[in-house]
Amino acid sequence: MRILVVNGPNLNMLGKREPALYGHQTLHDLELKLKEAFALHSFEFFQSNHEGDLISQLQRLPESNEYDAVLINPGGLSHTSVSLRDALSLLSVPKVEVHLSNIHAREEFRHHSITAGACDAVIAGMGLDSYSLGVQAAELIIKKRRESAN
Amino acid sequence: MRILVVNGPNLNMLGKREPALYGHQTLHDLELKLKEAFALHSFEFFQSNHEGDLISQLQRLPESNEYDAVLINPGGLSHTSVSLRDALSLLSVPKVEVHLSNIHAREEFRHHSITAGACDAVIAGMGLDSYSLGVQAAELIIKKRRESAN
Amino acid sequence: MRILVVNGPNLNMLGKREPALYGHQTLHDLELKLKEAFALHSFEFFQSNHEGDLISQLQRLPESNEYDAVLINPGGLSHTSVSLRDALSLLSVPKVEVHLSNIHAREEFRHHSITAGACDAVIAGMGLDSYSLGVQAAELIIKKRRESAN
Amino acid sequence: MRILVVNGPNLNMLGKREPALYGHQTLHDLELKLKEAFALHSFEFFQSNHEGDLISQLQRLPESNEYDAVLINPGGLSHTSVSLRDALSLLSVPKVEVHLSNIHAREEFRHHSITAGACDAVIAGMGLDSYSLGVQAAELIIKKRRESAN
Amino acid sequence: MRILVVNGPNLNMLGKREPALYGHQTLHDLELKLKEAFALHSFEFFQSNHEGDLISQLQRLPESNEYDAVLINPGGLSHTSVSLRDALSLLSVPKVEVHLSNIHAREEFRHHSITAGACDAVIAGMGLDSYSLGVQAAELIIKKRRESAN
Amino acid sequence: MRILVVNGPNLNMLGKREPALYGHQTLHDLELKLKEAFALHSFEFFQSNHEGDLISQLQRLPESNEYDAVLINPGGLSHTSVSLRDALSLLSVPKVEVHLSNIHAREEFRHHSITAGACDAVIAGMGLDSYSLGVQAAELIIKKRRESAN
Amino acid sequence: MRILVVNGPNLNMLGKREPALYGHQTLHDLELKLKEAFALHSFEFFQSNHEGDLISQLQRLPESNEYDAVLINPGGLSHTSVSLRDALSLLSVPKVEVHLSNIHAREEFRHHSITAGACDAVIAGMGLDSYSLGVQAAELIIKKRRESAN
Amino acid sequence: MRILVVNGPNLNMLGKREPALYGHQTLHDLELKLKEAFALHSFEFFQSNHEGDLISQLQRLPESNEYDAVLINPGGLSHTSVSLRDALSLLSVPKVEVHLSNIHAREEFRHHSITAGACDAVIAGMGLDSYSLGVQAAELIIKKRRESAN
Amino acid sequence: MRILVVNGPNLNMLGKREPALYGHQTLHDLELKLKEAFALHSFEFFQSNHEGDLISQLQRLPESNEYDAVLINPGGLSHTSVSLRDALSLLSVPKVEVHLSNIHAREEFRHHSITAGACDAVIAGMGLDSYSLGVQAAELIIKKRRESAN
Amino acid sequence: MRILVVNGPNLNMLGKREPALYGHQTLHDLELKLKEAFALHSFEFFQSNHEGDLISQLQRLPESNEYDAVLINPGGLSHTSVSLRDALSLLSVPKVEVHLSNIHAREEFRHHSITAGACDAVIAGMGLDSYSLGVQAAELIIKKRRESAN
Amino acid sequence: MRILVVNGPNLNMLGKREPALYGHQTLHDLELKLKEAFALHSFEFFQSNHEGDLISQLQRLPESNEYDAVLINPGGLSHTSVSLRDALSLLSVPKVEVHLSNIHAREEFRHHSITAGACDAVIAGMGLDSYSLGVQAAELIIKKRRESAN
Amino acid sequence: MRILVVNGPNLNMLGKREPALYGHQTLHDLELKLKEAFALHSFEFFQSNHEGDLISQLQRLPESNEYDAVLINPGGLSHTSVSLRDALSLLSVPKVEVHLSNIHAREEFRHHSITAGACDAVIAGMGLDSYSLGVQAAELIIKKRRESAN
Repeated sequence: MRILVVNGPNLNMLGKREPALYGHQTLHDLELKLKEAFALHSFEFFQSNHEGDLISQLQRLPESNEYDAVLINPGGLSHTSVSLRDALSLLSVPKVEVHLSNIHAREEFRHHSITAGACDAVIAGMGLDSYSLGVQAAELIIKKRRESAN
Repeated sequence: MRILVVNGPNLNMLGKREPALYGHQTLHDLELKLKEAFALHSFEFFQSNHEGDLISQLQRLPESNEYDAVLINPGGLSHTSVSLRDALSLLSVPKVEVHLSNIHAREEFRHHSITAGACDAVIAGMGLDSYSLGVQAAELIIKKRRESAN
Repeated sequence: MRILVVNGPNLNMLGKREPALYGHQTLHDLELKLKEAFALHSFEFFQSNHEGDLISQLQRLPESNEYDAVLINPGGLSHTSVSLRDALSLLSVPKVEVHLSNIHAREEFRHHSITAGACDAVIAGMGLDSYSLGVQAAELIIKKRRESAN
Repeated sequence: MRILVVNGPNLNMLGKREPALYGHQTLHDLELKLKEAFALHSFEFFQSNHEGDLISQLQRLPESNEYDAVLINPGGLSHTSVSLRDALSLLSVPKVEVHLSNIHAREEFRHHSITAGACDAVIAGMGLDSYSLGVQAAELIIKKRRESAN
Repeated sequence: MRILVVNGPNLNMLGKREPALYGHQTLHDLELKLKEAFALHSFEFFQSNHEGDLISQLQRLPESNEYDAVLINPGGLSHTSVSLRDALSLLSVPKVEVHLSNIHAREEFRHHSITAGACDAVIAGMGLDSYSLGVQAAELIIKKRRESAN
Repeated sequence: MRILVVNGPNLNMLGKREPALYGHQTLHDLELKLKEAFALHSFEFFQSNHEGDLISQLQRLPESNEYDAVLINPGGLSHTSVSLRDALSLLSVPKVEVHLSNIHAREEFRHHSITAGACDAVIAGMGLDSYSLGVQAAELIIKKRRESAN
Repeated sequence: MRILVVNGPNLNMLGKREPALYGHQTLHDLELKLKEAFALHSFEFFQSNHEGDLISQLQRLPESNEYDAVLINPGGLSHTSVSLRDALSLLSVPKVEVHLSNIHAREEFRHHSITAGACDAVIAGMGLDSYSLGVQAAELIIKKRRESAN
Repeated sequence: MRILVVNGPNLNMLGKREPALYGHQTLHDLELKLKEAFALHSFEFFQSNHEGDLISQLQRLPESNEYDAVLINPGGLSHTSVSLRDALSLLSVPKVEVHLSNIHAREEFRHHSITAGACDAVIAGMGLDSYSLGVQAAELIIKKRRESAN
Repeated sequence: MRILVVNGPNLNMLGKREPALYGHQTLHDLELKLKEAFALHSFEFFQSNHEGDLISQLQRLPESNEYDAVLINPGGLSHTSVSLRDALSLLSVPKVEVHLSNIHAREEFRHHSITAGACDAVIAGMGLDSYSLGVQAAELIIKKRRESAN
Repeated sequence: MRILVVNGPNLNMLGKREPALYGHQTLHDLELKLKEAFALHSFEFFQSNHEGDLISQLQRLPESNEYDAVLINPGGLSHTSVSLRDALSLLSVPKVEVHLSNIHAREEFRHHSITAGACDAVIAGMGLDSYSLGVQAAELIIKKRRESAN
Repeated sequence: MRILVVNGPNLNMLGKREPALYGHQTLHDLELKLKEAFALHSFEFFQSNHEGDLISQLQRLPESNEYDAVLINPGGLSHTSVSLRDALSLLSVPKVEVHLSNIHAREEFRHHSITAGACDAVIAGMGLDSYSLGVQAAELIIKKRRESAN
Repeated sequence: MRILVVNGPNLNMLGKREPALYGHQTLHDLELKLKEAFALHSFEFFQSNHEGDLISQLQRLPESNEYDAVLINPGGLSHTSVSLRDALSLLSVPKVEVHLSNIHAREEFRHHSITAGACDAVIAGMGLDSYSLGVQAAELIIKKRRESAN
């Protein structure tokens, strides 16, 4: 399985700020860790602080036919971006939204996710492990689709 | 690891209604499946249509010291029960809220979860697999707590 | 026709309190009256102050195959219970929501019914007669369904 | 019993549009059907697309002393007309609001009825049968008033 | 001064209903009373239950050049009619909105007047005397305009 | 008739600021003008920028038995002061709220008057003439009360 | 193509008021202009200040089979009339809502159009040219429907 | 005086969790303490996590005629339960709502109490002492009622 | 214990208006009654219709070191005064907010208290007895503080 | 006339996804089609998924003096971007906002356009034809400006 | 330059309470510090806990012609006082609103300032330095006005 | 002191548009002016219309260790960007938000700043001088931090 891991604004700061809160692992460490843990899959990590870059990246998927699933952590854009939701809606591969923190337990303006409505599943509050669980979620969705297709 | 799996109103109907939507597996099948998949853990399944029973069940945890984690699918109570949230807040073991469907993509009155704010993590939209991922999430939280305790 | 008549919180108080407002007839009197008025039907009355009991009772319907229709007066739960609405949604028999009083003419927080959205019809403001009209409504729905099935 | 049946905007289209949804019966068919079913009562049907005509028609009631009850289906005006509500408030005969569809299960802006607050009872979701049940509701209200007057 | 007195829905019922609340004077009595009290002015009374008639009547003003001022009691339309507000906005003669009751002390949905924003002055809560005061208000506005024009 | 004319914050600035908008007449000029126009009545003018002073002044009324009516222009306090409303509610003499400008045609936060709900009548938008009309309104309320008392 | 051009409240005032804002062209001038510009089409202009007349006019369409498209400028009713929206929903011919002004740049209560949700397209802010563009829009919708029907 | 002390969800956990916050006293200790402090009264303590049980318990009061007053701490149900409010409304004995914490100083969703509107008095923020003050409040209400009955 | 009893706008009217509702006891009677009932404490009563005076009075407390506790009935200011809340927040002595009536059972705009969030406890609905209970509440808070200080 | 056609996020996907919904024409096809249909005008198409790029592109207009009008389809940014609205406000050339779909008939969060308030006209719901009509709208605005300038 | 520094409720407590938070400097120290720092200007400090005193003080400005600018820290009144805003609106000298804390980072009910809308500039979050910066802001506004006057 | 001055969307247009409103000074002029006025500091100006670029720029700060403070004018993003707020929250250097205009006196959707909650101080309404005052604010914050560190 080839998986695109899309990371929104500020996620490039992982491991570089507030290690007490988020640990010392960077987005790159996470990439290595995922690759090691799921050796049968290939991963491409993409991060941008630009809403537009994230949308463009998602748009490339169907053309390239390179990926079987998308993991996305839209960061702060989860709560405001109708455009990112539209871009996700155009994709037919499994889409899993992941959040490091439990967004339901933070400030009120983070309780509601606009982008989650265009994804298949949501995993929140597990720190970096939200990503590993997200990979498994994607595997399971694909397996289920194949079964129901037969 | 001993895990209590708490299921709210209407989840006893799983596999008995709307098989086209939710498949043919019952809550009991799910229990067997989880036990098989995670042979090293023990599970106790609890289901009730009563908010009060769910609260009482959660309250028993610290006294009995029988469980290491809680998986909870509060069903429709997610969106309305302050009392269930209060009961969850009193527990110190890892708590993972799971939902079969992606609540963010359903009716507006299901977008916001009151109970999720008192849990550690949330997994939604994976059908029955939300539970398996929930078990893994609980394992990871426990592991992380042990590490940070050392 | 076999009809289940489900009554929510406080309806067991009928005829025992505020006779000036609601008359002297109890829920039991109502049951007798309905049985007399509709001698060809059988009725089972169910009342509970527990949201969970009401849900469980509704869930038993398809299994038992004992009832052809449901009359429900959810009382105060009309305005707050997502779980009761979910239980009603799972039923395929005709469902008629009845209210003793005209909920639109009372306090603002009684104007909106969450459960009514999962029923076929709503009758409000007729006192105990709301139930008799509800029975007729159920008869009519069944008749119409049979006609459209042929 | 002499009953005025008031129908608001677009109800003259009954049976002429969307027969799949509302059947082939016109407002005139409904009138005949009601007259047949309730041979002891007399009915006058009134329909207008004008809020003002509906109000004027209601105002004529007390002067003419011709009617013993009002059935009203205000159509789209249910949700917006304070003036129609005011006209209903001035009447002392029994007033029953009827709706073909279950307004609680449609778009959000149809969930709330302003006019219902000035009626005695509400019946919704029974198609044309909402009218027959409405007649019975009116009979029952009148009977009850007579009893309490004695 | 020639004054057009425009009365909205249900005001034709004045004196015919609820005399305990509004007294026994009809709209016609009011007309006579105003003519007697302000013998130097001429009055034309217009009442309609139709929003459209009220608008048409107001539109006729500038063409006919017959009136020097408008008194309007829009009744229930005060709270909902953008179209009536638009018609008032097109007039340059003094416009005084009058209400029999103090709308600020009634139901919440009567606290806000859309049409008042397009009038020069508002008088509420004086019963029929709201009209006499309205006439004086119109006189004063005209006087002030003449002074500032010189 | 003895009338207390209560003026809220900033009304002492009348005629001293923005003459283009409000004219050159001061609150004192207004007092003289009212006394001249209504020679049979006596007036006491009271102005304060203090919510507390306005309340105290109103409280003195029943004890002193000096006044037969109150005219009040609460200024900016109309929109926020629950305490001033409470003070008005305790008075049994006629109370007329007056506003120089048409509050319905200004900023949104001036559309709603909390204090008006505790008055008998409201007059707005007539500039200083709102006061003269207010005096007449008070006369009429008293006259009507006397009539209904007989 | 035969086009019905429906105009709501106050549009009969076009060209007669506020020429500085809306120009000197009347609704009749507009009719002539459209007929000249689109010589191959026939137009019928209908204007009313009555919500009810507008609804009745729209209802006549399918029966008469006289028109191929509807242009509608509901005026102030755009923002409040559920009944007009219902009448539009019953029509299958192309429906284009037009507004002289850009409603999004005016008062807040004009930003939202209830009726537009039942039309195929919306054109706003072009003055009288909104109508010509509306005609072209109708032509295009019809052309597209024919193509997709083949 | 015989007093029923009704305790809602999670109050059975008192003294068993978070002793730093709520002290070491359990609900049973509280019962003993109250009995000792008010030796002339008899107390029955009732606790349930079930909304339905609380309602049923309250309903038993008039029949049994065993209690002279009710103290109720509805816990999280204060903020959501219309049914519990309805049950309280049916009781004529003095009802005092008590809260351990100052609900006005906690999360926003705890600021508003639905059930308090159906009680005579409210005491909040005194920890366990809220109950003792509640007993005194009940004594005072009863005393006052007796006096006004004479 | 020395207690400052702070009373907001209109409370000086106690016993002088609406005796049917509030009894014949004045604020001074209340003072005597409290002094008699709690002979070991000293009381100073302060009342003002001025938000500013109430704030100033509260500010004097720490400097003078004359009082051990504050009872406050902010009247209508409870619902609107951020400044009074700020003044209360600066005090470290026990603060108990008291209300004569049950604010939760009155108009909607009285359901929420801004000032209560800065107090330790709240007592409402007990008439003048709210004050006696408030004194006891203050005693209990002080006692508890001393215990936890040891 | 030289026209800049600005397209927001996801519009580069036109014709590549969901052909059943939007047809097979790409943004490039649209460009060719417009150039053919309006041979006298020159067009430059600009598309970006970046809010920032769209703003920068708009800012270039006055400097370059290359364009006489702007057509803009802001996509999902219509509903959230204050910055894009600010950029549009700085331009003096005619600005026409176009939407492929009728935004008033889609999800609630698409009913309101922030950017439209800074444009001259809006055209929605015509699919790709919204652009052709937009060009004509721009022509008409320019023509009208020239006339009023003379 | 002569500057009036107006301080609202509770600011007289500066330096006397919560020194850990606000430091040990009193309002008087601030006055000395400002006078020292801006030796060329004269300052008058005014503080009151009374909304009315603050308004009266501001009203005195134009008459006395003693001040060239106003610095105002309205404290808690910022968020609620329409009357204070009205008083500020009447002044033509430069007005700068200052806040010790960053109101945007505190409780939600402090995020919005009503009075700021009537000032020229706002400075928040700088502690006592907000005042020094406020003085400079006033200097700059005056300088700019002089330049544009020439 | 080395200061990064971050400017959001449309600020590159300064001095190029609407000189009547904002003067003729460009962002570059502002840079020169600041450098001249504060010769001891170094400044780097950064402007982008891209939310993402602004975030990236802010993220670079801790790594490069090149700046001692940040001045930010987020333009329209102030009111909508959760992501930009998150980026600001990660910085520990002093952050001052500046606005050219008084956002509290403009359209309602500009009254609330999301980003300001993550800054130390806010200065608004001083035109370009908001920046000079912002520099001084940053100096003062740094000075205060040093003092409290000693």
